[in-house]
Amino acid sequence: MILCNTTVATVTPEGGYGLLDNAAIVLDGERIAWAGPLDQLPAEHADAPRTDLGGRLTTPAPIDCHTHIVHGGNRAREFEMRLQGASYEEVARAGGGIVSTVSATREASVEALAEGALPRVDALLAEGVSHIEIKSGYGLGRDTELAMLRAARQVADRRPVRVSTTFLGAHAVPADHKGRADAYIDEVCIPALRAAHAEGLVDAVDGFCEGIAFTPEQIERVFKVAAELGLPVKLHAEQLSWLGGTRLAARYGALSVDHIEYANEADARAMAAAGSVAVLLPGAFYTLHETQKPPVAALRAHGVPIALATDCNPGSSPLTSLLLTMNMGCTLFGLTPEEALAGVTRNAARALGLDDAGFIAPGARADLAVWDVAYPSELAYRIGFNPLNRRIFGGRA
Amino acid sequence: MILCNTTVATVTPEGGYGLLDNAAIVLDGERIAWAGPLDQLPAEHADAPRTDLGGRLTTPAPIDCHTHIVHGGNRAREFEMRLQGASYEEVARAGGGIVSTVSATREASVEALAEGALPRVDALLAEGVSHIEIKSGYGLGRDTELAMLRAARQVADRRPVRVSTTFLGAHAVPADHKGRADAYIDEVCIPALRAAHAEGLVDAVDGFCEGIAFTPEQIERVFKVAAELGLPVKLHAEQLSWLGGTRLAARYGALSVDHIEYANEADARAMAAAGSVAVLLPGAFYTLHETQKPPVAALRAHGVPIALATDCNPGSSPLTSLLLTMNMGCTLFGLTPEEALAGVTRNAARALGLDDAGFIAPGARADLAVWDVAYPSELAYRIGFNPLNRRIFGGRA
Ligand SMILES: [Zn+2]
Ligand SMILES: [Zn+2]
Repeated sequence: MILCNTTVATVTPEGGYGLLDNAAIVLDGERIAWAGPLDQLPAEHADAPRTDLGGRLTTPAPIDCHTHIVHGGNRAREFEMRLQGASYEEVARAGGGIVSTVSATREASVEALAEGALPRVDALLAEGVSHIEIKSGYGLGRDTELAMLRAARQVADRRPVRVSTTFLGAHAVPADHKGRADAYIDEVCIPALRAAHAEGLVDAVDGFCEGIAFTPEQIERVFKVAAELGLPVKLHAEQLSWLGGTRLAARYGALSVDHIEYANEADARAMAAAGSVAVLLPGAFYTLHETQKPPVAALRAHGVPIALATDCNPGSSPLTSLLLTMNMGCTLFGLTPEEALAGVTRNAARALGLDDAGFIAPGARADLAVWDVAYPSELAYRIGFNPLNRRIFGGRA
Repeated sequence: MILCNTTVATVTPEGGYGLLDNAAIVLDGERIAWAGPLDQLPAEHADAPRTDLGGRLTTPAPIDCHTHIVHGGNRAREFEMRLQGASYEEVARAGGGIVSTVSATREASVEALAEGALPRVDALLAEGVSHIEIKSGYGLGRDTELAMLRAARQVADRRPVRVSTTFLGAHAVPADHKGRADAYIDEVCIPALRAAHAEGLVDAVDGFCEGIAFTPEQIERVFKVAAELGLPVKLHAEQLSWLGGTRLAARYGALSVDHIEYANEADARAMAAAGSVAVLLPGAFYTLHETQKPPVAALRAHGVPIALATDCNPGSSPLTSLLLTMNMGCTLFGLTPEEALAGVTRNAARALGLDDAGFIAPGARADLAVWDVAYPSELAYRIGFNPLNRRIFGGRA
């Protein structure tokens, strides 16, 4: 099949739109066979059936490369208590905070976790999303960590979307190990990682390196096991303070380092040398009223690829729109609309270790989004508006 | 018809949810005949056909009480130029700013203006919205001001939604009257208002009282004509600086005073005395990177009703989601989820002078939204997620 009468944003490695006017895209099963100006269409494709896209814009399908979209319960009650003036302690006493999500997740079956995630997944798919990364990290015990990852795999069985799973046992110290973070890492987190890997449930390994979570030393113990198992790593680092997690992650060749509001120029240099993607998460920045912005100028100066993701989670970012994330990346962090588009396509793919998605070229997956807009900057410009005309996943509309 | 098996948020005059569990709502044509706990259903309604809402939450349909949703063109190019580092002058030289919207609006026919607004209107309707206020103000000349208001009326003909029209000739000094604001008010704005009123196109009269727009004295000349014509007034005031517009509007018994980031306690007192609603517009605050928040504590202390609206416009708030507006009202301005719900229902209705919408009680319009949520705080808590299950407009699903 040939998609024609469209402007194509191929998305270049430099992060530019790579616009082709009056273009055609030749689909061959799940892959793109050819893309270019229609008047250069190779003769071999001349007779293939054509779909007229009415002059609309086609981009790579968006990819959400950082989510906690599988979880039990929600935290609307806590959101309301805080706005009614409750203190952190009062919220905690009422069962709020991550503890409440851990409890609700532990109580849910694999099926209930997958089922609960589907409305949120569907909101992303309605914006054309083709690939979602899903982390564990609300089980904080072997069985529930594995249950979350099984639920993540179920999402890919139940919807036309690909899922990358990330083991995030080192997300928080659970109440049952309060004050014993080292024991939690050695006795729970690492054995759970080995068990999840043995079941084929782990595409990457992540951690939360922060004063309220784990030290670089504790994270490194997990990364060593990941390296032993041949699994790539990524890290939540320098979100609320600088602990040096970014450089640790770079030393382990991390696919990405995420949040990084407090990262500095040397961190950017380390990420560039390691080839790590900077995954910026403006939804959490917005929800937590943060003021320290990620070092965008340093990332640009050192050529660190920048991705954007929803961080969809029930506490700090109950966000299920990648389009809104693009707008927030521009409005809150000063990214350009071109960077925002590359951030949810090519660079998001790279943050997941995918080399065949997030751009439009021969051999890439035929995961495409067709939009009712005249120019790609409109995708980041509008707020709370979805101009998706059609979604193509693996060559199928 | 009776809607049953639902939790109803009636929305009280004090801004509370007014929750009724296991409730029923009796519809009689376009109106609500009865609402209350199902076990108190009056015998006269016992045999009416029932619709089971599956335990979902029912609220009054949201109302967007401040929009510039009818306009020509968009400003995505300008959004992009700014993020690429262009100065204000460079943007202006490239034809950006309100001038570009005025040009695009003047070039469009009434039909094209209505047609162009429909996708944005549809985005609001997808969240259950029943009533939209639409302002003129990008014509800045008699013919185009009238064309915008005619287009606003067309929106109500082409979609199942009610529209309130607001004449906003005093929005900006057009390029053709640069440096002659007084002449513009007297020779263009006021004659256009009289002409629009003669055609029945004006439900209320608005102005923009700001250093970059009009002085209180100039606005008052417009308000005097509104009073003479028997039209209610409202005002964009104290958005970027304090000019005293709020108190002027209160003296004219304004339905609402809008933005008001720089309003003070005395302004809140004046609004309370006048019965004016404070319409807060967090989308513009967010887009313009403002830091001065509206005086929420003073508004609460003096009992000023607080509404929330999208301010949908192509420059400072290209926002078409009232649910996201609710979240922004909480996250950016510290409103409670209860205040956010009242702000897009009962108080939004009041900002438009409607006494029969925005709450659920006998005699009110049967404009309702049924949501896939367990508790109303979830509406403001989520970001970029639409849990609408069904929209009921004038008693019709
Ligand atoms: Zn995260
Ligand atoms: Zn406005």
